[in-house]
Amino acid sequence: VTAGAFESAGLITLTTDFGLSDPYAGIVKGRILGRLPAARIVDLSHGMPAGRPDLAGFWLALAWRDFPPGTLHLAVVDPGVGTARGCVLAEAEGRLLLAPDNGLLPEALRDCPAVAWRQLDPGLAARLGLPPPSCTFHGRDLFAPLAAELAATALLPEHFGPLAAPADPAPLPRATRDGDSVLGRVVLADRFGNLITNIGAGSLAGFRQPVVDAGGRAMALLPTYGAADRGAALALVNAFGLLELAVCGGNAAALLGLGEGAPVRVRDGSRA
Amino acid sequence: VTAGAFESAGLITLTTDFGLSDPYAGIVKGRILGRLPAARIVDLSHGMPAGRPDLAGFWLALAWRDFPPGTLHLAVVDPGVGTARGCVLAEAEGRLLLAPDNGLLPEALRDCPAVAWRQLDPGLAARLGLPPPSCTFHGRDLFAPLAAELAATALLPEHFGPLAAPADPAPLPRATRDGDSVLGRVVLADRFGNLITNIGAGSLAGFRQPVVDAGGRAMALLPTYGAADRGAALALVNAFGLLELAVCGGNAAALLGLGEGAPVRVRDGSRA
Amino acid sequence: VTAGAFESAGLITLTTDFGLSDPYAGIVKGRILGRLPAARIVDLSHGMPAGRPDLAGFWLALAWRDFPPGTLHLAVVDPGVGTARGCVLAEAEGRLLLAPDNGLLPEALRDCPAVAWRQLDPGLAARLGLPPPSCTFHGRDLFAPLAAELAATALLPEHFGPLAAPADPAPLPRATRDGDSVLGRVVLADRFGNLITNIGAGSLAGFRQPVVDAGGRAMALLPTYGAADRGAALALVNAFGLLELAVCGGNAAALLGLGEGAPVRVRDGSRA
Repeated sequence: VTAGAFESAGLITLTTDFGLSDPYAGIVKGRILGRLPAARIVDLSHGMPAGRPDLAGFWLALAWRDFPPGTLHLAVVDPGVGTARGCVLAEAEGRLLLAPDNGLLPEALRDCPAVAWRQLDPGLAARLGLPPPSCTFHGRDLFAPLAAELAATALLPEHFGPLAAPADPAPLPRATRDGDSVLGRVVLADRFGNLITNIGAGSLAGFRQPVVDAGGRAMALLPTYGAADRGAALALVNAFGLLELAVCGGNAAALLGLGEGAPVRVRDGSRA
Repeated sequence: VTAGAFESAGLITLTTDFGLSDPYAGIVKGRILGRLPAARIVDLSHGMPAGRPDLAGFWLALAWRDFPPGTLHLAVVDPGVGTARGCVLAEAEGRLLLAPDNGLLPEALRDCPAVAWRQLDPGLAARLGLPPPSCTFHGRDLFAPLAAELAATALLPEHFGPLAAPADPAPLPRATRDGDSVLGRVVLADRFGNLITNIGAGSLAGFRQPVVDAGGRAMALLPTYGAADRGAALALVNAFGLLELAVCGGNAAALLGLGEGAPVRVRDGSRA
Repeated sequence: VTAGAFESAGLITLTTDFGLSDPYAGIVKGRILGRLPAARIVDLSHGMPAGRPDLAGFWLALAWRDFPPGTLHLAVVDPGVGTARGCVLAEAEGRLLLAPDNGLLPEALRDCPAVAWRQLDPGLAARLGLPPPSCTFHGRDLFAPLAAELAATALLPEHFGPLAAPADPAPLPRATRDGDSVLGRVVLADRFGNLITNIGAGSLAGFRQPVVDAGGRAMALLPTYGAADRGAALALVNAFGLLELAVCGGNAAALLGLGEGAPVRVRDGSRA
């Protein structure tokens, strides 16, 4: 099955802030399976921070290429549900990404040079026979059927709507250069309490002996968690190529008292 | 494959209070796949409140029709596991629903006019070759194999057991009319802290200017979250047709200090 | 498809401490599906206690046989990721089990008499065309592709690496006999607050009237939760054949104030 450049693998991932206690994510799957019984649906995560499209986009940026070409990534973190915000479809590197037009996908695709962006044609839902959506659950009423139709190639990306740039209202801050230092921030803490920053490995290349300052503490850059003493704080370049603060065998967010937005500086210890 | 009116799609949903930290839900899936390798198993939710069949039934009522005909919904919230409580199978609108006989399914199907109810034949498990079940995990020992056999149409509903009404020991309260007002209650708070009530949209039809009183606060009825100012409390009719209390961009349960059972009154503001 | 004694069912289970808030588990699935699109992937649990291979092994021991022969169980609880620890493959009863070589699988297979253990050939990853793994996410970089290749039978167990015993650095304590009593410990509390111990049903066989002492309280051995009065503490043999402490309709961990490591004694009340 070919949809222009997109050859669907019938594989749909879900990224939402629905959580897993309530059946919202399951309901979305039901609606997808009703239209595309052969869909293979994979949870990327339903634990995105509530109402934070920017952080969902940050995570999706680190994950979307781990699924094969032909995958459709559906991301619904949608504090503006039921308002006039649009819906956006991105085609990039053989995958489709579908989300509310609230900055989620621009964050997810910030490093991707070639993206074809489309805005949902306001008349498409009716032409597909969808009833008017509720005001509070477009994941069920709009995104699930759109994702199913796209993954089924019953709907081609070029029929989704016109080419148009997405909204990007609140992009996450980027690390900056400050003289000999790099200045960044903690973006989020993961399940282990590891503090992931917005400082990329590339910006560390110039340092002979990088030292990371955060929360009033200086940390050495080590290869991995177990390279530090148990209970010691360290910095490392994580599996996503980002600077991360951690505590060997412990929870850095709790032990260092740091969280989203905390400033992080990298300097060259050989020049101190 | 036809099983009387039930044409199995090989699709089984799971609704439990097992949580996802322990492997209980995974074990149920293993037992299903051992008997029906082609089963497509979807988690509706494993985060139902522990030991509350009534609330699991409430959620299931809002979700079971979102899966296509041919789906079998297995729901195991089972505080009476290992006691003399029975097992019940419901056939409704081309779906099967299977659960302990503790009021879960009557709550789920309360608005469904045509349900065929069956009680598990006490001898069926042995005839299917199942060993005597443990006293604490019938999800694994009894419900998983029964669901697999039903979804495989190796077991037909009419062979499950005799037609018989289910138990309904503790139904959730319904909203009532009180003069010019409607009186209801908060049923539960969802992941976002939105407070879902037992007041249906239909009972709001008569009000020219509905005002919702709860927790000593009067709230306007708005179309969706983003129609209120950020941080403001509001009421809305949610995607399930139920009155819901919310805070724009915030957690209503925490900010309003309300939870299960809190009284909610709807009155006509134009008559005050 | 036959791989020596292992006939793959294309079924892969995942047991990790990744949690479900972050997309780590989803990423592992993406990498598996990229190599084996037909894989059926089932979450056993991603809620294993962080950095505790021993407890993950304990749970896996209770679950791995619930999946049919031909299943590959991938377990990644890996505090030593990026250090010199190896990777181990076990073949037992027609299933494969794959994990870091940190004691997880020896705990999982402690009661299994016939296990073929293999250590990962250090050159295999390169021969499979895998890029050098990151230092912090071998679940994605190493275990996912290895699991996919094994489940695809593109990689046979005998080509995984040489037969060699696994490491077993910190086995969980076993229950012991102390005169007329059995002495054990609480291993963990589950989602319901039920306290699962390391005391097997077999060691209770000799007691005419078993009494369980824990937390300064004496509990009777009852058949199931609902056999006690609501709110009363009890002991039972759970569905895994282990002694468990519970509170009828309540959370034993919270109400008894007990957790991992708490001593539990079983004595014969008829001899007191």
